[in-house]
Amino acid sequence: MLNLTKKVAAIFLIASVFAMSSLGVNAKHPNLVTTSEDVQLMRDAINVEGRFATTYKKLKAQVDAQMQQPMAVPVPKDGGGGYTHERHKKNYQLMYNAGMIYQLSQDEKYADFVTDMLLQYANLYPNLPLHPARKMKSQNPGKFFWQSLNEAVWLVYTIQAYDLVYNALNASEIKKIEQELLKPVALFLSEGQPSTFNKVHNHGTWATAGVGMAGFVMNEPEWVEKALYDLQKSGKGGFLKQIEQLFSPQGYYNEGPYYQRYALFPFVTFAKAIENNQPERKIFEQRNGLLLKAINTTIQLSYNGLFFPINDAIKSKGIDTIELVHGVTIAYGLTGNTGYLDIAQQQDQIILSGDGLKVAKALDKKLATPYQFKSVAFGDGNDGKQGALVIMRSVTEDSDFNSTQTVLYKPAAQGLGHGHFDKLTWQFYDAGNEIVSDYGAARFLNVEAKFGGRYLPENETYAKQTVAHNTVVVDETTHFNENVEVGNANYPTLNYFETNNFGTVSSGKISTAYEGVELERTLALVNLPGLDNAVALDLFNVTSDDKHQLDLPLHYHGQLIETDFPLVGNTNSLKPVGAKNGYQHMWLKAQATPEQGLAKVTWLNENGRFYTQTSLVKGNESFLFTQLGANDPNFNLRNEHGFIRRVENTKQHKFISLLEPHGLYNPSKEFTLEAASRVSGLAFTEQDQLALIKIDIAERSYLVVINQAETDQKLTTEFKYNNKTLSLNGRLAVYELNNQ
Amino acid sequence: MLNLTKKVAAIFLIASVFAMSSLGVNAKHPNLVTTSEDVQLMRDAINVEGRFATTYKKLKAQVDAQMQQPMAVPVPKDGGGGYTHERHKKNYQLMYNAGMIYQLSQDEKYADFVTDMLLQYANLYPNLPLHPARKMKSQNPGKFFWQSLNEAVWLVYTIQAYDLVYNALNASEIKKIEQELLKPVALFLSEGQPSTFNKVHNHGTWATAGVGMAGFVMNEPEWVEKALYDLQKSGKGGFLKQIEQLFSPQGYYNEGPYYQRYALFPFVTFAKAIENNQPERKIFEQRNGLLLKAINTTIQLSYNGLFFPINDAIKSKGIDTIELVHGVTIAYGLTGNTGYLDIAQQQDQIILSGDGLKVAKALDKKLATPYQFKSVAFGDGNDGKQGALVIMRSVTEDSDFNSTQTVLYKPAAQGLGHGHFDKLTWQFYDAGNEIVSDYGAARFLNVEAKFGGRYLPENETYAKQTVAHNTVVVDETTHFNENVEVGNANYPTLNYFETNNFGTVSSGKISTAYEGVELERTLALVNLPGLDNAVALDLFNVTSDDKHQLDLPLHYHGQLIETDFPLVGNTNSLKPVGAKNGYQHMWLKAQATPEQGLAKVTWLNENGRFYTQTSLVKGNESFLFTQLGANDPNFNLRNEHGFIRRVENTKQHKFISLLEPHGLYNPSKEFTLEAASRVSGLAFTEQDQLALIKIDIAERSYLVVINQAETDQKLTTEFKYNNKTLSLNGRLAVYELNNQ
Repeated sequence: MLNLTKKVAAIFLIASVFAMSSLGVNAKHPNLVTTSEDVQLMRDAINVEGRFATTYKKLKAQVDAQMQQPMAVPVPKDGGGGYTHERHKKNYQLMYNAGMIYQLSQDEKYADFVTDMLLQYANLYPNLPLHPARKMKSQNPGKFFWQSLNEAVWLVYTIQAYDLVYNALNASEIKKIEQELLKPVALFLSEGQPSTFNKVHNHGTWATAGVGMAGFVMNEPEWVEKALYDLQKSGKGGFLKQIEQLFSPQGYYNEGPYYQRYALFPFVTFAKAIENNQPERKIFEQRNGLLLKAINTTIQLSYNGLFFPINDAIKSKGIDTIELVHGVTIAYGLTGNTGYLDIAQQQDQIILSGDGLKVAKALDKKLATPYQFKSVAFGDGNDGKQGALVIMRSVTEDSDFNSTQTVLYKPAAQGLGHGHFDKLTWQFYDAGNEIVSDYGAARFLNVEAKFGGRYLPENETYAKQTVAHNTVVVDETTHFNENVEVGNANYPTLNYFETNNFGTVSSGKISTAYEGVELERTLALVNLPGLDNAVALDLFNVTSDDKHQLDLPLHYHGQLIETDFPLVGNTNSLKPVGAKNGYQHMWLKAQATPEQGLAKVTWLNENGRFYTQTSLVKGNESFLFTQLGANDPNFNLRNEHGFIRRVENTKQHKFISLLEPHGLYNPSKEFTLEAASRVSGLAFTEQDQLALIKIDIAERSYLVVINQAETDQKLTTEFKYNNKTLSLNGRLAVYELNNQ
Repeated sequence: MLNLTKKVAAIFLIASVFAMSSLGVNAKHPNLVTTSEDVQLMRDAINVEGRFATTYKKLKAQVDAQMQQPMAVPVPKDGGGGYTHERHKKNYQLMYNAGMIYQLSQDEKYADFVTDMLLQYANLYPNLPLHPARKMKSQNPGKFFWQSLNEAVWLVYTIQAYDLVYNALNASEIKKIEQELLKPVALFLSEGQPSTFNKVHNHGTWATAGVGMAGFVMNEPEWVEKALYDLQKSGKGGFLKQIEQLFSPQGYYNEGPYYQRYALFPFVTFAKAIENNQPERKIFEQRNGLLLKAINTTIQLSYNGLFFPINDAIKSKGIDTIELVHGVTIAYGLTGNTGYLDIAQQQDQIILSGDGLKVAKALDKKLATPYQFKSVAFGDGNDGKQGALVIMRSVTEDSDFNSTQTVLYKPAAQGLGHGHFDKLTWQFYDAGNEIVSDYGAARFLNVEAKFGGRYLPENETYAKQTVAHNTVVVDETTHFNENVEVGNANYPTLNYFETNNFGTVSSGKISTAYEGVELERTLALVNLPGLDNAVALDLFNVTSDDKHQLDLPLHYHGQLIETDFPLVGNTNSLKPVGAKNGYQHMWLKAQATPEQGLAKVTWLNENGRFYTQTSLVKGNESFLFTQLGANDPNFNLRNEHGFIRRVENTKQHKFISLLEPHGLYNPSKEFTLEAASRVSGLAFTEQDQLALIKIDIAERSYLVVINQAETDQKLTTEFKYNNKTLSLNGRLAVYELNNQ
């Protein structure tokens, strides 16, 4: 078998030969994401009633309105969010849209508009210095924009706009626009900033996409080669290396879903242009079809339309994000898989492209079939072996993924600078809502009054801290002592993952988050026969060399309904739970130390479902009830609720609990069902490598068995329970016990 | 003109003559809300595809499933919420439904089922003592239920069920059911509890409705007479007196919308039965068509489908409540007004009745036209002169009432035991949401863990208190010293109300909420030409004999974004704002005393709109920022936010402010518009009876003039402003000023 370097070199060699031969002086226009063949079909479609024509008319009306406004190509001045920044962003979008309307309407006025704007840019560009608002130490300033990332995005759009209007241009216009604008920009973004262009990083993807596409349009095959293999054409950088490195083999992007959907866009755009210009490269087949996997994985990383909000994430971001609309459109175009149409339908946006036409027609014909959401462990890191992000869904083939119980479990890697210190955290979802929650990023995007709309200081002081998540904090300090580099260098191990008819189970561990402490967590989403809802089992084992204080927070959305143990409330005065590492932001509202046995906390979420966490305690766990908002003078934090289970001065502790959705609160229709937990018993024992959890719930008894063996070999085993011999074949099984 | 007593006596005389003659031994069945003529049409309709047939099939399937369960008519034991209570409630509903399915399907098994159950009830009833769970001091215990109110509701349903299956019964069944069940129950609820039956109160309405309908079905014309005119047939009580007394002339029910929709149901049900049996009474024309007005007013008392949550109210209750579904169905049946279909469409529930069929057919034919929501002052009290509940909507004929700016202003009466001490409070709505909020009732309906599902202690200690509302609190004490009787005996005066093209303005005052203090508030919802949204102006004037501390709270939903004055936050420790009267439940999060001029507070609601209240201050108003949750050991309160404007040691103060919706926050699509307030100036002056408010907003200047004259006579006037003579014709006008 070829090793990696040889494989890349081989691909490079073959691909180069193809590439050099396939570009000719008489390249057709347009021929990037949308081809001239596409355009023929699209022109027909705008005259037929349907989604495509509707979208076309809507965009045309929008472009018409924008073209009424005075054209502005201002001298660059402002940083992100400022006028010239936003204006240049709007301009490239408008040029692209107007170019597309020109192709479809064949009305020259749209081409003229784009040409005028391109000529204005061509007048402006040659004399532009580096952007005045650039960061002084930054290695990648732009000219139109303060950072070259935006400049690369500008080129990705603008080169497509140019391609769309090319046929309407005369020779002198072509000369001026290419020589004084597009080629200099492409050179600036490639030869002009080798460190970014060659970097195997999302910023590099935008640069290579822009430059490579410029190469196709302006017949610069060398640029395409450099975009694919780096400036030296070494294969150590460039687009193919980015495909190789920036995703896991299953198409998971290390920074998490919020950034995955962003990173995805230049990949699929450039890849589609490569596919149209150099189909012989089979770009979508690279690395076992990595790019399609990445699109698919982005979809899987969502619940009820919203992305799982791990790491720095704006929580309202979901599958209807424009980047994923492009992704799904291209994926459907390539595969014809009608499951993508289900997603496209939810996205409810049609792209005006050849693939967009295919999607629109298929949706018009009602060809969508349910997209299959799965229980899956996405290996993290470019080798897929740096832990994993685990999704467990109680979904069966005919259930609605928008309402099914779902567990997100994160024995995953740090995820670079936007990563949170939340090793082994989890979340729970039910009935369309986030139940056990993750704060996401502390940020009010683009709201000037809130720290200029950037990440808030509280993103560092709270949202990234371990206590802001649902995982163990040792001695009130944050994982890796809050050191990103250390975090990036260390990651959990995925012990195992299995999904079967009984449910899904996964286990992970890490011994580097704290010195001398091993954190090991096993989570299972279990179907109990006869119960409406799956329940979530959580076994979190902490072992350490020395004695420590261990905290396990659980953050929930909703209103506390009851605890089955007495609370001591701080009713007339509040103090923060701690002094630092996120604790300074949490008010301590009440506390309790339940006696040995079951300890229940029940809350009601906004949509009228009840949730009870039943913990199995030994009398040494304190429960601290918290609310966010301390040391927050500017009211930057959402005042969310949680409770922390705390054990002090211990070398070993196992946090055991069961989360159970139940009942319904419908004050509008005046009925309330099962407001109280149905769990009457919870017992934990171990037999060799087996964890046995007996659950008494809703007047039934179940035994859940988890096989904790170190390897996946020989999982078939027998064991005795209540004098009966039971057999287990796999990691997880559920046995219904006779009522006792 | 006849005085009231004479008028009632006259109606009584005429009506009695009609009544006695129209009941005969051969009364047709069914003939209450649904008649045998209705049934013929309904039987045809269930075979035609459409809403009616769909509803029928759904209900039939439901009844079929319920009939599979063992029949249970248990010996009464439990109070509200307990098993026997809930079982008997389900039984009457099931008998009614099965009776209706019998009429429509003509399948005897449904009649047999109802007959069986009625016979079981007839076996049980004769030996029943008063209910064991009755309150010992109560004057109105039931036998099936702990209170006779439920027993009356039982009769209203059961007599209809009996009427529906009557034709399937043999003589001995009729005899047993009537003699041993229905007649004794009717006598128990009338002669057996004169104080309730004769009472001009909602409980009396249920009793008279049940007994009166029983009179129609079992040919007891005397019962009908007594139901209409009281046991003595004096006209001092009974259904007609209830119509006369329990609503204002405009059909407003003194306890507020949450209880209005509940009170409405027996009124419209019995009235419809009267209409079908004794059309000559013209029951729906009584008191100038009061019952139709009451239905219509209930609809008007809503915003985006939810009732205004004043007084004790569950906030999720809205126009789709079953009581109003019946109301709207009957109203459409009587009037054929297609605006009701708009509401019926939103209710999305079809009643299986003659009128329900009309609604279903009309909706199938898409005959609905937009229901017209209005700006209106509903006079309070049975004479309509005990203050008013005022609704201001910025709606125009073609705007969507679900998203329009709306002000609710409450210079209304106390509203009995469920009333809140909130004279002159207000709320603001925008874009479908409650912006300046009312807590509603502190209650988790039927959630056992929350104080048995009843009103929580915090309903008394917080929700009813003045500080829980958006109106002035003097010296941290509650209006009327929290005395309901005093509250009921005193009410505000509505100074004026006017709605015109400039907007809507209303003013009210009260001098009895606090001794020696007059509270006078003028609110206006003003359209400023060229602005997208109406703005709300608030002028609250307090004058008193002695010096006091004055607090004006504003409760909002959402996240604080900024203040334009520096805040001093209690960031590391929280204390309640005060010790009692609701203040003990509010944490003091921050405070400030802005300098003379404008003081702005901006917040963002959950749906991404910004709101800024700009106050015109003189440097003597402190702002206290609060969050609910202090002294709440059981986590019973929602942790909502507010701020209190406070002036100390003063005999007179005018709180002046402007509320402005602005901008849009869309983190999902990554754009934010107008996050900052557009108000740059606010000035207040008076000229004689005119209040002149100059507003500088969005780079324009407006003058809003309110004519505060004591009477509505001679409102046309002229005045000078900036050396120009302007004329005013009415209470409110807006003048656009040249930019200055």
